Amino acid sequence: MKARVFVTLKPSVFDPQGSTIAEALHSLGYQNVADVRQGKYFELDLDVASEQDAEQLASEVASRVLANPVIESFRVELVDAGVRS
Amino acid sequence: MKARVFVTLKPSVFDPQGSTIAEALHSLGYQNVADVRQGKYFELDLDVASEQDAEQLASEVASRVLANPVIESFRVELVDAGVRS
Repeated sequence: MKARVFVTLKPSVFDPQGSTIAEALHSLGYQNVADVRQGKYFELDLDVASEQDAEQLASEVASRVLANPVIESFRVELVDAGVRS
Repeated sequence: MKARVFVTLKPSVFDPQGSTIAEALHSLGYQNVADVRQGKYFELDLDVASEQDAEQLASEVASRVLANPVIESFRVELVDAGVRS
């Protein structure tokens, strides 16, 4: 079963990488891009039997390894099963 | 209008970062995580009138700036409007 994990900086945390991308886009003429926030994206291939197990495993891995819970938040999505948490 | 852009390495391209994460997870006891692929994730805040304009602008920005089309593919999703391309 596949899971997608999106890790983003919390809204209160300044994102210099995103700001730099936004400035670069403005200088290229894309004035309509008001703001950019950059995050990380992971596709996990999980050897589990149920959707519930997949969700639990992906959330545990995300909070323990993939994201830094102090400054980042994450979202887990099971592929072909809608948004889960 | 908000758009999300997901950039991933093409399936034929080796992903050393993802492999390293998978090995780290195995050494932490997460044997059920068979494989990991890492990608990039962008949230764009767009000043456009229609969904069609948002999709077009996000796709153009993604292919010109955010992704390297030689080794990466991207997917654009409009927030609250389902998957678009």
